[in-house]
Amino acid sequence: MLKNNFIQDIYDQAQNYLNKDIKICGWVSNIRDLGGVKFVLLRDRTGILQLVFKKGITPDEEIMKSKDLVKESVICIDGVLTEGKSSLKYEVQVKKLNILNKPYEPIPLDPDTSTDAQINVRLDYRWLDVRNRKISSIFVFESWVAKNFRDYLTEKGFVEIFTPKIVSTGTEGGAEVFPVIYFGKEAYLAQSPQFYKQLAVISGLERVFEIGPVFRAEASHTVRHLAEFHGLDFEMGYINNVNDVMDTVEGFFRRMVEKSKKDELIKQVREFFSLDVSIPEKVPRIPIREAYKILEKYDKHLPYGSDLDTESERILGEYAKKEYNSDFVFVTEYPWKVRPFYTMRKEDDDQWTYGFDLLFRGLEVATGSQREHRYDMLIKNLKDKGLDDKKFKFYLDFFKDGTPPHGGVGLGLERIVKQFLNLDNVREARFLPRDTERITP
Amino acid sequence: MLKNNFIQDIYDQAQNYLNKDIKICGWVSNIRDLGGVKFVLLRDRTGILQLVFKKGITPDEEIMKSKDLVKESVICIDGVLTEGKSSLKYEVQVKKLNILNKPYEPIPLDPDTSTDAQINVRLDYRWLDVRNRKISSIFVFESWVAKNFRDYLTEKGFVEIFTPKIVSTGTEGGAEVFPVIYFGKEAYLAQSPQFYKQLAVISGLERVFEIGPVFRAEASHTVRHLAEFHGLDFEMGYINNVNDVMDTVEGFFRRMVEKSKKDELIKQVREFFSLDVSIPEKVPRIPIREAYKILEKYDKHLPYGSDLDTESERILGEYAKKEYNSDFVFVTEYPWKVRPFYTMRKEDDDQWTYGFDLLFRGLEVATGSQREHRYDMLIKNLKDKGLDDKKFKFYLDFFKDGTPPHGGVGLGLERIVKQFLNLDNVREARFLPRDTERITP
Repeated sequence: MLKNNFIQDIYDQAQNYLNKDIKICGWVSNIRDLGGVKFVLLRDRTGILQLVFKKGITPDEEIMKSKDLVKESVICIDGVLTEGKSSLKYEVQVKKLNILNKPYEPIPLDPDTSTDAQINVRLDYRWLDVRNRKISSIFVFESWVAKNFRDYLTEKGFVEIFTPKIVSTGTEGGAEVFPVIYFGKEAYLAQSPQFYKQLAVISGLERVFEIGPVFRAEASHTVRHLAEFHGLDFEMGYINNVNDVMDTVEGFFRRMVEKSKKDELIKQVREFFSLDVSIPEKVPRIPIREAYKILEKYDKHLPYGSDLDTESERILGEYAKKEYNSDFVFVTEYPWKVRPFYTMRKEDDDQWTYGFDLLFRGLEVATGSQREHRYDMLIKNLKDKGLDDKKFKFYLDFFKDGTPPHGGVGLGLERIVKQFLNLDNVREARFLPRDTERITP
Repeated sequence: MLKNNFIQDIYDQAQNYLNKDIKICGWVSNIRDLGGVKFVLLRDRTGILQLVFKKGITPDEEIMKSKDLVKESVICIDGVLTEGKSSLKYEVQVKKLNILNKPYEPIPLDPDTSTDAQINVRLDYRWLDVRNRKISSIFVFESWVAKNFRDYLTEKGFVEIFTPKIVSTGTEGGAEVFPVIYFGKEAYLAQSPQFYKQLAVISGLERVFEIGPVFRAEASHTVRHLAEFHGLDFEMGYINNVNDVMDTVEGFFRRMVEKSKKDELIKQVREFFSLDVSIPEKVPRIPIREAYKILEKYDKHLPYGSDLDTESERILGEYAKKEYNSDFVFVTEYPWKVRPFYTMRKEDDDQWTYGFDLLFRGLEVATGSQREHRYDMLIKNLKDKGLDDKKFKFYLDFFKDGTPPHGGVGLGLERIVKQFLNLDNVREARFLPRDTERITP
C-alpha cells in the first residue's frame, strides 16, 4: 500500500513518530504560500495534518513540484514529524512529494465549505461533499450503527439472512411497489423482507436479521422519506408476547447509546456531533389509546382509532423527554385498521393489535408487532382487510406445517442516523439518495 | 421469551442442568410410542433432544395431550434433564407439555429426509427443507462468512457503505440488466455496486465495503448462476498496485479458513461438513499467459488472449491443488478484451490488464482489478470498448476532482459457501433462489 497509516494513527502514535520519517497520503485541503515557506493541509477521512515545504529542509526539486499543487490534489509525501506551532500540534517537514492525481477542472464544490451549500448541490457532487470530514463522519457512524445491530443480535443467537429483493407480490397487497421486468414475468421490488424473515423463522432458523435495501414507490417529498433506503430487520420465534420484541429493540438502542460515548471506531464522529442521547432504564411503552389522551392535553385532537400523524409523533417525543427524560418512546397496540394484515390482533379486542412503533426524538424509526402465526386467523385477517387470499397463497402456505409464535421489527437505518446526529434531512444520512426526482449519481 | 435456551445450550451446560427443571421449545422431529412410554425427538436449529413421556413421571393430563402430537408440531415443555441411554446422552422427563401450533395438512416434505428430495421440491417447500439441521447449517455458515468479511475489513479501517440498487445505467453498458419502472423514468437494477464503491473511495472514505444484492438478467441454467445473489464487495484507495487488493482478499480467506476450525458460532456446521480447506502461506498468482501454457499440458487448448471457460477453471484448480496444495489460485493479468472498461490496462502492454480472478476449488469466486483512475485514460478505455462516453458522463465526473489510485473486488457469497462446503449447486447456498423459472416463494 502507498498508505499504511491514516492521519489519526499519526496523531495517536505521535510520541513514537516524533522526529522520525513518516509517509502519508491524502487530499490537499488548503495551501498557504508565504514565499520562503509553504503550508499545505493534508486531509483524509480521519484527520488533517499540516505539511511544511521549506527551503533548506525540503529539497529544491520537491519545492518545485509543490508549485503544481492545487486544492484536492491527491498526494503522498515522505517527511519528518515535528511538533508544530499551529493548533494542530504536529506538522511534517516534507522531504519528498508524489502527486498522484490532480483535478481536471476547477472543483465545482469545495469540500471545506460544502456544509454551507444546498443539499441538492451537495448530492450532485457527493464525491466532493463527503470529503468534508463532518459529512464523512455521518457515514462512518452509519456503518457503526449497522455493526452494532449485527453484533448485538449475533450474540443473542440470531442468524443473518439474505432474502430476495425481486418478489412476486407486494407485502401490503400491491400498492407503492416498483415493477420489474423479470424474464417476461410480472415482478416487483420488495417493500420489506417481511414475508421472508417470517419464512426464515418458520424454517427453523428461529431468530434472524437482515440489513438490506427496501424500496417504496411513494411520491413523498418530505425530509423523512426516501424511495430506497436500508432497513434493519429482525424476526424472532417462540416469543411470549410483543414485549419480547420491544425488549430486544430497546436493548439494541441502549447498548448503542452506551458504546457511542467511548467506541474508538467513531472517535471521528464525536469530533463533530455530540451523540448526547438519553435512554432511561425502561423506555416508556404507551398504548395508543393513552397517547390520544396525552395529545388532547397538548391540544392535538386525533380521532379515536386513527393513526398518528407527524405532529402527533413530535408531541409524543416531547412528552417522553419531559416526563421520562427519554429520547425514545414506544407507542403500542395500534388500531387494526391502520396495520397490515399479518399483525396479530388483541385477544380481548380485535379492533386493536399487538403492533407498535418506536419514536426516537419524535420520529418513527421502527415499526414492529407480534405476527399472526395461526393459518386460519391469517385467512380471516386477509378477508377483513378485503384482500384476496389467493394472491397470498405462497405466503399462507408457510403457515400450514407448524409455526411458532413470532414477532419482529423493521428499523430505518438512515432515520436512526438522522435522529442520533440531529440532522435536518434524512437525505444527509443516505450516501446516494433516490427520490422521485433523483436517480443519479 | 417462551424459549431462553437453544438445545445446544442444554448440552453445553448439561452438568449444571442435570436432574434439574428445564424449559425448552422446538419442533417435533419424531415420535415413538411404546405403550407405557413415549419418546419424542425435539429439534431446533442447534440440536436434537429426546423427550420422555412416561406414566408415573409425566402427569396423566400431559400424557393425554401428547396423543395430539404429530411430526412438526411446535411445542414447549417443562421437565427434568437426566442422563439417557440413547446415543444422545441426555433426555428430558416431561412434566408439562404446551402445544403451540400443529400442521394443518399432511406435511408435503419431511425435514428429516429432505436432503434426499429433488432440489426443486426442496426449494418449493423451503420452510420444511431448512428445518433439516444439515440444511440450516448451510445458512448459519453463510451468515458467518458475511460476518468474517465485515470483521476483517472493519479492523483494517474499511467503512461499510449502502449504495443504491436502482441505477440509471448498467455497469457494463446496458446488457443483462433488469429494467425497473421508476416514477416514469428509465432505470435498472444494479449489476454490482462497482461505480458506487469507486465513488465512495473517491469521496474520501478511502476503504469501503458492501454486502448487498446484485442482479444479473442472464438466462443461465447452470449450477453456478443465479439471477439474484449477494455480493461481497470492497474497494480500497492509495494502492501501490493490484497485489494490495489480492493480499486483502487472500487475508480474508486465510483468516476464515483458520477460524472455521474452532469458532463456536459454527459448531453446528462442523457436525455436518468437514470444512477442510487448504490455503498455503502464499496463494499462487498465475498470469493468464502462463495459465494458457499450463492448460496445454492438460490437453486443454484455449486461444491466446481468450477468457477462461468453466473447464479451464476446473483444471487450474486441480493444478493448484497438486502443485501448491492450495484450494485457491489467482489468475492475473486478464486480457483487456474480456474485461470491463474501468479495468486498468498494463502499463507496458495495453492488451492485458491488472485484472484477476480468484478460483476456489476450480470455481471463480472473486473478480477484481486495479481500476483506471485517470480521467483521460477512462475516456480512451470507453472509446476502445466502443461505448458511448456520454452515457457514462455521471461516472466520468467522479474522476475530475482528484482521484487516488484504487482497486477492489467483488466476491459471490453463495459461491464461497458452495465451494467451502462442497455443495453441488449454488442454489443450495441461497435461501430463496431466483432464476429464469423461479420467483416464489
